[in-house]
Amino acid sequence: MKRIFTFVCLVLCLHGACAQSANKDSLIIRQIYETALSEPKAYEWLEYLCKKIGGRLAGSPEASAAVEFTRQIMDTLGLDRVYVQEVKVPHWVRGRQEKARITHSQRFSNMPLRVCALGNSVGTGEQGVEGNVIEVKSIKEMIALGKGAVAGKIVFFNMVMENRHINPFTAYSIAGEGRRNGASEASKLGAVGVVVRSLTTKIDEFPHTGSLRYALNVGQIPAIALATVDAEALSKALKIEPNLKFYFETHCKMLPEITSYNVIGELKGTEKPEEIISVGGHLDSWDLGEGAHDDGAGCMQSIEVARIFKKLNIKPKRTLRVVMFMNEENGLKGGLKYASEAQILKEKHILALESDAGGFTPQSIGIGDEEQNVTKMLAWSKLFEPYHVTLVRNGGGADITPLRPLGTVLAGLRPDANRYFDYHHTTQDVFEAVNMRELQLGAATMTAFLYLVAMEGI
Amino acid sequence: MKRIFTFVCLVLCLHGACAQSANKDSLIIRQIYETALSEPKAYEWLEYLCKKIGGRLAGSPEASAAVEFTRQIMDTLGLDRVYVQEVKVPHWVRGRQEKARITHSQRFSNMPLRVCALGNSVGTGEQGVEGNVIEVKSIKEMIALGKGAVAGKIVFFNMVMENRHINPFTAYSIAGEGRRNGASEASKLGAVGVVVRSLTTKIDEFPHTGSLRYALNVGQIPAIALATVDAEALSKALKIEPNLKFYFETHCKMLPEITSYNVIGELKGTEKPEEIISVGGHLDSWDLGEGAHDDGAGCMQSIEVARIFKKLNIKPKRTLRVVMFMNEENGLKGGLKYASEAQILKEKHILALESDAGGFTPQSIGIGDEEQNVTKMLAWSKLFEPYHVTLVRNGGGADITPLRPLGTVLAGLRPDANRYFDYHHTTQDVFEAVNMRELQLGAATMTAFLYLVAMEGI
Repeated sequence: MKRIFTFVCLVLCLHGACAQSANKDSLIIRQIYETALSEPKAYEWLEYLCKKIGGRLAGSPEASAAVEFTRQIMDTLGLDRVYVQEVKVPHWVRGRQEKARITHSQRFSNMPLRVCALGNSVGTGEQGVEGNVIEVKSIKEMIALGKGAVAGKIVFFNMVMENRHINPFTAYSIAGEGRRNGASEASKLGAVGVVVRSLTTKIDEFPHTGSLRYALNVGQIPAIALATVDAEALSKALKIEPNLKFYFETHCKMLPEITSYNVIGELKGTEKPEEIISVGGHLDSWDLGEGAHDDGAGCMQSIEVARIFKKLNIKPKRTLRVVMFMNEENGLKGGLKYASEAQILKEKHILALESDAGGFTPQSIGIGDEEQNVTKMLAWSKLFEPYHVTLVRNGGGADITPLRPLGTVLAGLRPDANRYFDYHHTTQDVFEAVNMRELQLGAATMTAFLYLVAMEGI
Repeated sequence: MKRIFTFVCLVLCLHGACAQSANKDSLIIRQIYETALSEPKAYEWLEYLCKKIGGRLAGSPEASAAVEFTRQIMDTLGLDRVYVQEVKVPHWVRGRQEKARITHSQRFSNMPLRVCALGNSVGTGEQGVEGNVIEVKSIKEMIALGKGAVAGKIVFFNMVMENRHINPFTAYSIAGEGRRNGASEASKLGAVGVVVRSLTTKIDEFPHTGSLRYALNVGQIPAIALATVDAEALSKALKIEPNLKFYFETHCKMLPEITSYNVIGELKGTEKPEEIISVGGHLDSWDLGEGAHDDGAGCMQSIEVARIFKKLNIKPKRTLRVVMFMNEENGLKGGLKYASEAQILKEKHILALESDAGGFTPQSIGIGDEEQNVTKMLAWSKLFEPYHVTLVRNGGGADITPLRPLGTVLAGLRPDANRYFDYHHTTQDVFEAVNMRELQLGAATMTAFLYLVAMEGI
């Protein structure tokens, strides 16, 4: 009986302690959200990054400016250490404005065609490329048509990003194979060029860039993206005049590799400094637009995490690192370098959180993968209910993926994705497309989650 | 033993039936969401309502056009009945563009002042109104200052809608007392006019209108809203020159009551037609802007509910009514009429759902109040998890509030509110401010919830 009594007391005590700690946590989390909303520093920094620096593809002068800008912000925050990490990055440049037109057609030669080169594509040079057009809905469909149908032609991947998907990223992933691998697969069948329908569910006038991957030992053919409204029109035109030709001219090229940097700020852990928690976004962006949602937002939110820690005098028990990753868009060299340094230095990276899905209202944080035990973290869900944020399984982000082999738990902020592809990789991804409250709520969510990780472990 | 066995069997069977039904429901709900996203009719109708008709204050020709437009849409849907309900509404008109300036000041007489009359306000007429300005942060502060300080002056309610609140509606409700009651309270102390800071957390150039209420037996003094950026500037100017004067001129007036209509469409219940479920928004809007989020969105979503029912061949067991309420903004006469007719006809209104918080990504449906048992409905939460929507206690909406005394459960769609007050009651509340996916997800959420109510009761 005494034993049972002792046990019951112990449970009650633990329960009491737990409740007290949850209560303290919920108060601190409320402070975090209120601070983020009433002192919108991430939003102010983002304005500078977008308006004074602008689009910042790896290797560009603007990317260098962004490195310096974020280093300087972090220098003002009173962190324990701010440093850069050298990274060799590909240096792709777009060159002069792309051109495209329909030729050998009486009806459609004046049709507007808004295009842009795909990132990493070779250019056509002054002579351009011209050919009949073969329209397909998938790489599989093209392969089934075979060399006879494809050789000497321009392949038009008219893959629609369908609205019916609840999560637009699902649609993006399905429709995106043409952009990612279309050029190499078409080249294998002798095509001379590739046109992909822009990746957005909207019918609009903005070509969406994004990177392609050339497979090894395959001839590199030029590739462009076409605005969705023009893709619809081209598809109709082809039904009427299947023999029309398409001409395009791009002046992009890949220059020799160049030196750039990840930018890193550190708050040293007070009790377990060897356990490292990373939070970041990618500092590079496409040259079209200002890289506001993709991924200026995630970068500024990540710095905001450290600022709010300092502001609220939160002293993390574990080490918090804020990382601006370079070159996510067309090489991932920053993410690879960060993980490789971690491995060389035998660092213990317990968790990494990336924000790279836009500065929209946060809906969830995805945590870990199926092989990892993340139940302790998922149990914090209750603390996020007042903010309409859920903690769910399966997280990550491109830049932090290389940390996974080190056993790191990868987490990702998941904001409302409904508007993301209205702006993604276009001239429309500008500061004005970001709402202050939405951006700051994302920063608050990241801060609150990392506060718990830093204090309680994973 | 046999008894226990029988009991266990029964439980298992019931459990099986339950699971089967939940599975069927989740499939139908998925169909509802996919239909809403892939056939964006609410969005198309909203474009017409905003661009062809525009702002539609009760009593205006545009309000009449909106009545006819929505009646005609419903007529095409194959509902069992479409009809209008006559409502007498106040007829307030804004008249010529308002003017405001600072006078008796050397430094500030050229300061821009973007203003608009508050709805229901009396106008100043050609002679305008002029006076020294007394700035207060609350009605309480003004009352404490007393008649001596207020008489003959213009009261400037500079009540800030604070960003720190997680829910912007909380901030709106707190800061809104100046707009709602400031004129009457100031009049009691002898003020000659009222200027209120616009209700938005942003610092911008758009005056936000909205209605005031004149108390009975109190002199009616004119009132205007001032853009937040100008409110900040006026406050600074007053610190430098406390004796400056403020002049404004408004030509608004209240005309005699006029006849308008609620528009109602009905799908008759197959099993319990006497149990009525209403879904609606308000068809009137402010004259500034196009009433896109407020509340064209809610109206078009409500009609979309009926369209999706028909499209998916959902035959509701209970009667579904789609209601376009007239005159929410400055009188609520449509909502009052609908409830009064329900009472006269002794109708049994089991539940009413309003969408009047903008066409943004849905976050929750609020259901019932503390006196009502809504546990059965809250238990449907699981079905909404894939859509990041929660079912929570406490719902409602202005237009359906008059149904509450009939025992009706009031529910409200709660979308993401972070951008709502960027547009609310201004020239900025236009079709372009609405995202198709967000609007349609709201419609899908309403449809899914009402499908469950119509089939399973409350």
